[in-house]
Amino acid sequence: MSASASRPTTVTPPPSDRTKVRRLPERGRYDRATIDAILDSALIGHVGYVIDGQPFVTPTSVWRQGDRLYWHGSSASRMLRATMDDVPVCVTVTLLDALVLARSGFDHSIDYRCVMVLGTARAVDDPDEQLESLRIFMERLYPGRWDLLRPVTRQELKATTVLWTTISEASAKLRVDGPHDEPGDETWPAWGGLIPVETRLGVPEGDGFVPDGMPTPLVSARIFPA
Amino acid sequence: MSASASRPTTVTPPPSDRTKVRRLPERGRYDRATIDAILDSALIGHVGYVIDGQPFVTPTSVWRQGDRLYWHGSSASRMLRATMDDVPVCVTVTLLDALVLARSGFDHSIDYRCVMVLGTARAVDDPDEQLESLRIFMERLYPGRWDLLRPVTRQELKATTVLWTTISEASAKLRVDGPHDEPGDETWPAWGGLIPVETRLGVPEGDGFVPDGMPTPLVSARIFPA
Repeated sequence: MSASASRPTTVTPPPSDRTKVRRLPERGRYDRATIDAILDSALIGHVGYVIDGQPFVTPTSVWRQGDRLYWHGSSASRMLRATMDDVPVCVTVTLLDALVLARSGFDHSIDYRCVMVLGTARAVDDPDEQLESLRIFMERLYPGRWDLLRPVTRQELKATTVLWTTISEASAKLRVDGPHDEPGDETWPAWGGLIPVETRLGVPEGDGFVPDGMPTPLVSARIFPA
Repeated sequence: MSASASRPTTVTPPPSDRTKVRRLPERGRYDRATIDAILDSALIGHVGYVIDGQPFVTPTSVWRQGDRLYWHGSSASRMLRATMDDVPVCVTVTLLDALVLARSGFDHSIDYRCVMVLGTARAVDDPDEQLESLRIFMERLYPGRWDLLRPVTRQELKATTVLWTTISEASAKLRVDGPHDEPGDETWPAWGGLIPVETRLGVPEGDGFVPDGMPTPLVSARIFPA
């Protein structure tokens, strides 16, 4: 797939100067369809936040609900406590697609799709809304699983913080070009091309309490293609 | 593998208060053997930096050389220009190992290994040192490839910036526990266990200039296990 083939005919401008892709601007996209497609294919995001001038980057599960990007964790987590009070955050989601090999070191690259969301983080205060968010998170990764589980207790809900930021100041950056060489390099006697990178599920390993014949859970094919 | 089984007998203390793992401290490790093993198995890191109080998180290839963690990019990159002047950075590397399913939503989890390196970034000034770093980066991912490539030009070297930070203020956090339920939940009629997550290479696709019979390049089995 070439970059131009997947570019929308109407180009959405960057929502802010600070989300504008500077380096190789032709790789930047600002339309929500592109941004949402990347967010919806990812399990892990990296949340950036600042404490006393020092940036921290913490990996965590993320999920989208409409115009919001969510993450969660223990109410005792430093990352969650540092990000829940309307402080600036950056949540970046990265999907690795292929290794790209050329005849020069300079033209080696990686095909990837990533989204950077800038915003301020807010905690979900309402317990019903919090429970619904956790349900959506679970159903997104394991379709049909929520109703099979032992219901969430009030204490578990209290021990969990759900955060979100709006997906308004966001950009996507894609390298989907495949290999290319500097003019004249193509005939240099080295291999050129791409090697796909695939994130896949292995064989499920039930614990000692799975009844005979119980099927293994469904996992989102969007996040983990079969 | 249980967390306790892989914990070293001599526990290395955190190098600083800000790298100390607070939430579930038994998952924190500070010994260089653990930290290096995670860094050496990763291709991508997420670099956190601050511009005008706003955190940014940019994905990029990282590699270790001794006590230093390196990354690189175009000399025109905003990320590189923002991080090269001794400003505070955080580089986080995350390896996803397994989905962990339990009988309650609360005990669902993910097995992962991650490293967070806090430091200040510095650019490599010396061209010979820069070239050697790029060689190490290439050989790490594609063993034996560097000498087969069209040599790097002075102009390409100038267009590339190589940055590093020392691996002195760093922590690893590992969840390698597998599944567990709250006491009494084990017999709830839902599947519990783990589903491994594997990042693998697909079938290499040569471009139109690969001579007949040329073998595909070797890729690091440490980073992409066969």
